[in-house]
Amino acid sequence: MSGKPLVSILSAGLSKFGKRKGVYGRELFVEAVTEAFERCPKLDPKKDIRAVIIGHMGESFEHQGHTGPTLADWAGLLPSAAIRTEAACSSSGVALRIGIFALLSGLYDIVLVGGVEKMTHRTTPDVTEFLAMASDYPFEQWHGLTFPSLYALMATAHMHKYGTTEEQMAMVAVKNHHNGALNPKAHIRREVSLEKALNSRMIAWPLKLYDCSLITDGASCLVLTKPELAKKFTDTPVHIIGSGQASDTIGLYERQNFTTLKAAKLAAKEAYKMAGVKPDDIDVAEAHDCFTIAEIIAYEDLGFCQQGKGGKMIENGTTTLEGKIPVNTSGGLKSKGHPVGATGTAQACEIFLQLTEQAEKRQVKGADIGLAHNVGGSGATATVHIFRRG
Amino acid sequence: MSGKPLVSILSAGLSKFGKRKGVYGRELFVEAVTEAFERCPKLDPKKDIRAVIIGHMGESFEHQGHTGPTLADWAGLLPSAAIRTEAACSSSGVALRIGIFALLSGLYDIVLVGGVEKMTHRTTPDVTEFLAMASDYPFEQWHGLTFPSLYALMATAHMHKYGTTEEQMAMVAVKNHHNGALNPKAHIRREVSLEKALNSRMIAWPLKLYDCSLITDGASCLVLTKPELAKKFTDTPVHIIGSGQASDTIGLYERQNFTTLKAAKLAAKEAYKMAGVKPDDIDVAEAHDCFTIAEIIAYEDLGFCQQGKGGKMIENGTTTLEGKIPVNTSGGLKSKGHPVGATGTAQACEIFLQLTEQAEKRQVKGADIGLAHNVGGSGATATVHIFRRG
Repeated sequence: MSGKPLVSILSAGLSKFGKRKGVYGRELFVEAVTEAFERCPKLDPKKDIRAVIIGHMGESFEHQGHTGPTLADWAGLLPSAAIRTEAACSSSGVALRIGIFALLSGLYDIVLVGGVEKMTHRTTPDVTEFLAMASDYPFEQWHGLTFPSLYALMATAHMHKYGTTEEQMAMVAVKNHHNGALNPKAHIRREVSLEKALNSRMIAWPLKLYDCSLITDGASCLVLTKPELAKKFTDTPVHIIGSGQASDTIGLYERQNFTTLKAAKLAAKEAYKMAGVKPDDIDVAEAHDCFTIAEIIAYEDLGFCQQGKGGKMIENGTTTLEGKIPVNTSGGLKSKGHPVGATGTAQACEIFLQLTEQAEKRQVKGADIGLAHNVGGSGATATVHIFRRG
Repeated sequence: MSGKPLVSILSAGLSKFGKRKGVYGRELFVEAVTEAFERCPKLDPKKDIRAVIIGHMGESFEHQGHTGPTLADWAGLLPSAAIRTEAACSSSGVALRIGIFALLSGLYDIVLVGGVEKMTHRTTPDVTEFLAMASDYPFEQWHGLTFPSLYALMATAHMHKYGTTEEQMAMVAVKNHHNGALNPKAHIRREVSLEKALNSRMIAWPLKLYDCSLITDGASCLVLTKPELAKKFTDTPVHIIGSGQASDTIGLYERQNFTTLKAAKLAAKEAYKMAGVKPDDIDVAEAHDCFTIAEIIAYEDLGFCQQGKGGKMIENGTTTLEGKIPVNTSGGLKSKGHPVGATGTAQACEIFLQLTEQAEKRQVKGADIGLAHNVGGSGATATVHIFRRG
């Protein structure tokens, strides 16, 4: 059923997500890297790591570009070749994919991939503006479109075409806050009731405050190696068996359809094919819930349900911790938080924890195959990765 | 003598460099891509290209991040997986290296790599600020250090330690403006006298106006494939036989030595070893002359001369068009221009033209082996690539 390992994950690390006052992003990254090395004591950071690939979305947040060597420097990983990838909120999903390229190329034996973003020290209007750079400048930003309004266009189209409701969207928030409350690293560890979510402040109709993910500080990383070297370092590796990436138009206005993300569908198709698995085989998934409607669309794009049936899927409880395909056991971007550059590898961290039985109160019993779905902007980039217990 | 091809370059394209009023960066990229496809008519852009990897330094210049899919979209290359790499002024040197990873991984047969930057529509203070993001924010930018002042620190250290002179630095400007005047794509196609360069306005002592590279708009790209597929598309491929990348501290203040770039030396060592060639074997090179002192240091870091002898090397004429190792035949960053994200692949374009005898008035007769040296920031990133005529 499942394909050949492309690469193996030796370890993973995550900083505490949240409002992290008084630290730079580079310090959050050190927190994540430290956890990853503590989790795999046979790794020697200075000796074993020769390449560092980092997803980082916005130079404006900390007035800091050239983030690759900055983070490698602070994490004590010089003179590793350090690379920053940027693909908006899928910056570290892309870093993970480049890490796979680097290992498959034969030029490296072990690489560290990760991501970081420090956001909460900026004002909300600043954050909104910086995030908007992931959409089209002359044709979207210029006219005042921001990300809540872009996803609101998708939500209204989905409501109109398939009868998806505001209640169904709110149910995504309820589920993800429930999971996040069980995750010690999550930003907002608080359950939310359906009523509270539905009555929260309007942001861009039909999206309310609780339909939106969080502005969060955080960092994440994974240490990857060739499958044949994994057992030298750990008895419990997790293999990556499928990787997909595709792109779509930068502007939403250029698309024929607002109710699906074409790049995500193509990335999923590539990843499933490589992995030799079907949507039905997935035991646990992290999906890119930057807005609640995005998780509903993800169910459909990933083939977890038919097109248009995403609203019903959340309603039926299929994706809760106890459901058939638990989605966003970490709390997702909605409750764990969304430090944009860190999100892709943070999703992979959660899958790593699940497939190595380290997910504590949110553990999905016997999970064998996992999936991470990471979306950049309004879907101009998407990556999908499929993981198998080693 | 020379190593096995890693990948082969099928074609290369370059936009006109300069002040390009009234166009977006994405339009300059289309110009470069169009030239590359015109140069290799057997390529079918829609059918053959599945991945696009783009170096782009600053989202602030055009208020546009998520540049990967933006450029792939405008160039008609969707739904290719599109990736942006950022490593300051070596952003597209890194993109080239990732393109090599992508092909060696076996996941792609053909990839397009390139870079872009649109800079001249911003004020000089804005450009200076945006470029400064490639240095350390808390420990450099905050204190008022900008790139001319960082390289001025290197220049004074080199003068103090090795007796390098202001005249020798000015000679780099004279040579590169001579070459740039022969390059129809160059930004400033004008010879400059030693006297004029030496008497130009002081920027950060000892660096004067003519010691600094240009603020330029431009784009560049290469189409790469596996060596075994090259002959299907062209009779005159150029092979990449060596690739090196390393990192150093983001802050100059963290280094023990200001007169050499450690990352560049390590990258060169890796590339030479992989290529199986020595500095003496190089027939033509593009070196990262963001400031004239940087080219002098590059001679030493690349092993073209002994440490400390770079000043003598320019004085002796060894690196002119008629010299033993012509450096920056394109005019370099100094005269061709420095659209930061585009520079790495623009250097590779020049080497491609030289090794396929398309460099017109600046052709180095019979050049067989070329080298491109691309530096990010004050040397926190460096890439070195070595090329051989196919």
